[in-house]
Order: sequence, then structure tokens, then C-alpha cells
Amino acid sequence: MTDLRTSVVERAQLAMILEVAAYPKPGNVDRCHDFPDTTLEHFLASAILARPALEEAATGKGRIGEIIKHAVRDTNTHGGGNTHFGAFLLLVPLVYGKDIQGALEAIAHTDSSDAVAFYKAFAMTAVRMPAGDELDVNDPHTLTLIRERDMNLMDIMQHSAANDMVAREWVNGFVLTRRGADLLKELGPGRQSIVRMFLTLLATEPDTFVIKKHGLAVANETLLAARDVLDGRRSAEDLDEECIRRGINPGSIADIVIASIYIALGEGWSWES
Amino acid sequence: MTDLRTSVVERAQLAMILEVAAYPKPGNVDRCHDFPDTTLEHFLASAILARPALEEAATGKGRIGEIIKHAVRDTNTHGGGNTHFGAFLLLVPLVYGKDIQGALEAIAHTDSSDAVAFYKAFAMTAVRMPAGDELDVNDPHTLTLIRERDMNLMDIMQHSAANDMVAREWVNGFVLTRRGADLLKELGPGRQSIVRMFLTLLATEPDTFVIKKHGLAVANETLLAARDVLDGRRSAEDLDEECIRRGINPGSIADIVIASIYIALGEGWSWES
Repeated sequence: MTDLRTSVVERAQLAMILEVAAYPKPGNVDRCHDFPDTTLEHFLASAILARPALEEAATGKGRIGEIIKHAVRDTNTHGGGNTHFGAFLLLVPLVYGKDIQGALEAIAHTDSSDAVAFYKAFAMTAVRMPAGDELDVNDPHTLTLIRERDMNLMDIMQHSAANDMVAREWVNGFVLTRRGADLLKELGPGRQSIVRMFLTLLATEPDTFVIKKHGLAVANETLLAARDVLDGRRSAEDLDEECIRRGINPGSIADIVIASIYIALGEGWSWES
Repeated sequence: MTDLRTSVVERAQLAMILEVAAYPKPGNVDRCHDFPDTTLEHFLASAILARPALEEAATGKGRIGEIIKHAVRDTNTHGGGNTHFGAFLLLVPLVYGKDIQGALEAIAHTDSSDAVAFYKAFAMTAVRMPAGDELDVNDPHTLTLIRERDMNLMDIMQHSAANDMVAREWVNGFVLTRRGADLLKELGPGRQSIVRMFLTLLATEPDTFVIKKHGLAVANETLLAARDVLDGRRSAEDLDEECIRRGINPGSIADIVIASIYIALGEGWSWES
């Protein structure tokens, strides 16, 4: 039984460990697979090390952008590269505001200082940007541009939404996060519901992390393959094996799955089967 | 690289997740195995949920017995049964005192209120006691006996040391904890050093958890089998498979391995290979 007295911070940490432990999740690090430079332990350690930033978020005070930067800074102390950058982009406002409604209110109050802090966090990661992006994280002029245009963090997310489904969650009111949480509650308790929810989201929208790395055709192919798994025409293990072999890791769906688990835990869904 | 600025609390939590994730560890829950009622997720969740008690320990104030009770209470909210009771018995004084020397000083200051709180924690778990123990956790008279004899928590550990290698760590100055930490530093960074250290401790002393469940003969047999693995006469996977099949889980060695990882992390050992 998930204890509803569990704090929002613990729920966020549980969401991170439950997502990475669930298997088989096609293409991502999970209980059965590491990547060459990023292992299960990196994701688990990141969930532990994110605690101070999540505690900061839970106060419901302070600047969202700055808190995201703290989460990235504190979890970058390991050498496994980016683990939870996208997840923090969702979890920090969700923990700050407790639920989706609260997160949207918190997001509405961001300003250009949040946008600048977020860009500094972004620069600490190895996350890719589309070539030719006007707000290139590697261009020192970008911070000046953000300040000159007085862009807040929501403006940044609107700028990124076309190419990034995590940013899109901010813009569209956490639609996929909400859908994932509802799916968990429909599917019932336990690990296998996380896997099924992951596959369902994967079969719903092409993963933008996969698009950035392999192009839209491969992302759509993965979406259709996830449908095949859901319809019983293919095993999850088989798709997992293919994704691993081809380096297709739906990392943005994984970030949203974490946010969905966080919401579902807060609404009484139990991770224990 | 393990960041030495990592707090003692984070180190304790990292030790818990690194121990359970390491594989193949003969007979225990690990990345490759669940037990029917206790899964990898239960151990990971326990590491997250132990945080408030570990924070309490890190202040170096308050009563050790009470803090152990809080750790057990807060992690018993899941349905996976006992996960880290023995580990808390080691980690709480180690976090309280920061290192082994500090833990021994903290232990020296326990009194009968710690002993009573510890027994209340014990009663919350499903951990076995040898039949006919004078201080039976299921006998309500035991608490009266502890108070009448003015036994402190060290007295309790001395009482238990013959049959429990975790209690023995208190009595003998954390000898195996120290040996495990030294082994990790000798073996070098990474997951495989945890597995090798686990096997080395398993090959050194019969696991008292196995003795309680299966008798001394089986525990000694497991000890010799661990030597065979270390000497290359048998694979760790093969011994793991046999232990799982026979229900032999060296849980007390696992508790000590957690304490050893905690100490080694504090002395600069890195979990990343």
C-alpha cells in the first residue's frame, strides 16, 4: 500500500526509482539494461541526490528555474551524464505546486530569471538542441537575448514545445502526465502497470528525444512498434532488444512516465502489486 | 566520482541502493531476482523512506534506539516485510557518529530507553529470534525485564551477539564492516567490487540469518561455496541459482555490506567504474 502520508518529495523520488526499475521498457536503462556510460545505479543515485532540490521545491517558495538548476547541479556529481533533466523539468513545478493545477499556477509566475537559471542548468547537461535554434544553449549571447526580450520560463517552453514533448507538457497543461496517471489508476497496482502505461504513451506520440537523435521516421516506427506490443503482435522484450541494438531510447516518454507516477501516487495508486 | 561533499545521509542511502542493485549476489534480492513477497522496489523504496530517520541520526543528537525505531516505522509502510532492519542497526549509529569511532562513542551512551525502543522496533518486523531466548521480542514481559535489569542497547547486542553477526558488529567494534570497506578500497571502484566484497565476507563467516533459517551446516556449506566462487571453481551465477532455489538468503552479510559501502564512500571509494 502506498501510504498517502508519504511526502511529495518522497513521492517524486519513488516515481524516479519505480520508473527506472520497471522492465522491460523498450530502449531505456532499466532493471535489465545499462547503457555503456549510464547505468541503473546512475539513475538510482540521481533520485537520492535530487532530494535537497526537491525539498526546496516542496516549500512552494523560491524560483522554479533556480530549483531546476540545483537539481541538475546536485545530480551531475556522478559521471553518468544526463539522467533526469527532463524529469526535473516536470517534477520541480509539480512538487512546488503539489499537483498539476498547482504546477500551472507556479509556472505562470516564472520570469526571465527563471529562464536564465534554466538555461544555465541546460548548459550543465549533454542534452541536444535542434541545430540552428535561435536560443542555442551553447551560445553565450542567448542569456542576453532572454533578458532583453524579458522571456519567462513558460516562453522558453513555448519556444521549445514544437520539438520537445517535455516542454510541451508545460504549455498544454501536463496532458500526457495526466493521461499516464489515469492509465496507472485504470491498470491497477504494480510494476507491470508502469510498463503498460509507458508502452501506451509510446504508442500515442512520437518520442521527441528519439526524433532529435534518429529523425521522425524512426520515432514513428517506434510508435507503431509499441502499438504492436500493446495489441499482442509482438513481445515487449523483442521490441526492447531491437531498440537497445539500434540505440533508440525514448527518454522523453520516460520523463513523462516519472511525472505520471508522481501524480498517481498522490492520488492513491499503489506501486505494490 | 563519488563527491566527498555528499552528506552522510546520502551516503547511507547510496549504500542501500548500491548493495541491492549489485549482482549476482548469491541468494538475495538483487537486480536479477525478487523474492515472492519482497522485490527490488521494496528495497529501493525503503532507502528513500529511511531519509527522515537518517537525517535525525545525522544531527548526532537524540536516542539511537528511538531513531532505529523511526527508521523501521517509516520503512514498514510498504508491504514487502523486513528490508533493512539489520542495516539500520548498523547505519543509524554510523550516521550518528559519522564513522566507526563515532559510532562506538554513540553506542557507549545508550541506556535502557534505547533498549526498549529497539525492542519495539524489533516487534514491528518479522525477523526471527532463536527459540527460548530469555529476551523474546514476542513476550510483553521482556520490556519489564530490560528496565528492571537496566540493560542498555549494548547489553542487548551482547546478549544477541552469539547468534547474530549484526549485533556482533556493535560488540566487536564493527570488524566486518571495516573489513568490507577496506576490501572495496583494495578492489577498486564499481559494482563488481561490491559483489566481490560480498562474496569475500560470505566466505569468511557463516551468515547468522542463514543459520537461524537453515541451521549451521547449511550456513557453513554456503561459506565454502562462496570460497569456490572466489577461487574460480564455480560461477557466482551458479551459486546464486542454487541459493535462490533452496531459499538460502545471506541477509546479515547484506546488512554488513551496506555498512561497509557507507564507510568506504566516506573514505573516497567510488561506486562508478
